[in-house]
Amino acid sequence: MSSVKIAGLSSATGVSVATLKYYLREGLLHHGAATAVNQADYDESHVRRVRLIRSLVELGRLSLADVAAVLAAVDDDDLPVHDAFGVAQDAMVPRRHHDGGTAADAELHRQAMEQVDRFVRRHGLDVRPDAAVRTMLADALVGLTRFGWAGDGQLVDAAVFDDLLPPAMAEAEVSIAFVPDPADRAAQVEYTVVGTILFEAANDAVRRMALEHHSHRRFARGRRR
Amino acid sequence: MSSVKIAGLSSATGVSVATLKYYLREGLLHHGAATAVNQADYDESHVRRVRLIRSLVELGRLSLADVAAVLAAVDDDDLPVHDAFGVAQDAMVPRRHHDGGTAADAELHRQAMEQVDRFVRRHGLDVRPDAAVRTMLADALVGLTRFGWAGDGQLVDAAVFDDLLPPAMAEAEVSIAFVPDPADRAAQVEYTVVGTILFEAANDAVRRMALEHHSHRRFARGRRR
Repeated sequence: MSSVKIAGLSSATGVSVATLKYYLREGLLHHGAATAVNQADYDESHVRRVRLIRSLVELGRLSLADVAAVLAAVDDDDLPVHDAFGVAQDAMVPRRHHDGGTAADAELHRQAMEQVDRFVRRHGLDVRPDAAVRTMLADALVGLTRFGWAGDGQLVDAAVFDDLLPPAMAEAEVSIAFVPDPADRAAQVEYTVVGTILFEAANDAVRRMALEHHSHRRFARGRRR
Repeated sequence: MSSVKIAGLSSATGVSVATLKYYLREGLLHHGAATAVNQADYDESHVRRVRLIRSLVELGRLSLADVAAVLAAVDDDDLPVHDAFGVAQDAMVPRRHHDGGTAADAELHRQAMEQVDRFVRRHGLDVRPDAAVRTMLADALVGLTRFGWAGDGQLVDAAVFDDLLPPAMAEAEVSIAFVPDPADRAAQVEYTVVGTILFEAANDAVRRMALEHHSHRRFARGRRR
């Protein structure tokens, strides 16, 4: 794509000029090459950046503050690709809406984090000790425990998630192998981030379709739809 | 659990009294049995309902309006369990932040929806023609297409998601088989909703751990962590 004005960037990305200006002001989008007062040219790098922001916001449902953290990791050339991916991963973990929380809650969460730790070690996963994703799995354990999944008051064992791992590992191996190399570092980080977000949305959708299918088979078979 | 005042409901659920009162005002939580002016007793049914709301908000990241739609489906005794699950499923699909959008965007989305339709038919999935989850999968296709996953300007084929289906189907069959039967209808719907949300969060977390693991193997092996 040859360079375009901001209106051209808007039509190339489907994002309004007002929103693009907001991204520029917030520093999420790098400025174009100035051609006159209040005029700048934008190129393919701007299109890719806007698409990355939109993927993170629309499919990853990240706040703009979290988007900024992901982009900072993409852009920091001193950060090796795996570390940048880690920073981006942490920013992509949804923050819980904390609401007071009792001492019993805190204890349950602590036990769930121990379960997650055991899960990670048992499967030999290279996941940072302080990776935010651990709290995602712990929160799911707490949720299942509260609903009495393992019987009243019993902490659910993280082994309940064991069957989720083999397909996830197979898919992750393929995804990571696909990351272009050699390539510029920013492109590699962008690739892993986009792959995480887009395949996660796809996977969630496919899982929900499978649930609807089996709910239909069990509860609605024979009924007219 | 014997009946408790609102302070007891708060400590049983870890949700503040102020938030509980908000749920009562908004009709998300049914009122307790009045015992005096401004006093009511709450029981196990209130605890379960508060946990369901928190799961939907914290792990499903649903808005309170969407939570209300899910709860209405859970509570509508005239709605057979599979239909109620469908209503809840639709409410659980994140709405995109629409931002204008060009004609080319609309056309790309239309083509992606056709791809999804083909995916559903090819795999013989019982998914409603107007199920909101279809747009989730279409959005992921649009995102991958924009990032040039299939080469510049080429619509990504939904077959890229084929490998996600077998593990999803195996897991869904087990999940749906676990729904208690006979049981009261509301409990069945609640079970499917909670199962969707909690196992989805767990599955996303496990997939991200697998990605970090393989990123580490490829990009950081041999480095000190």
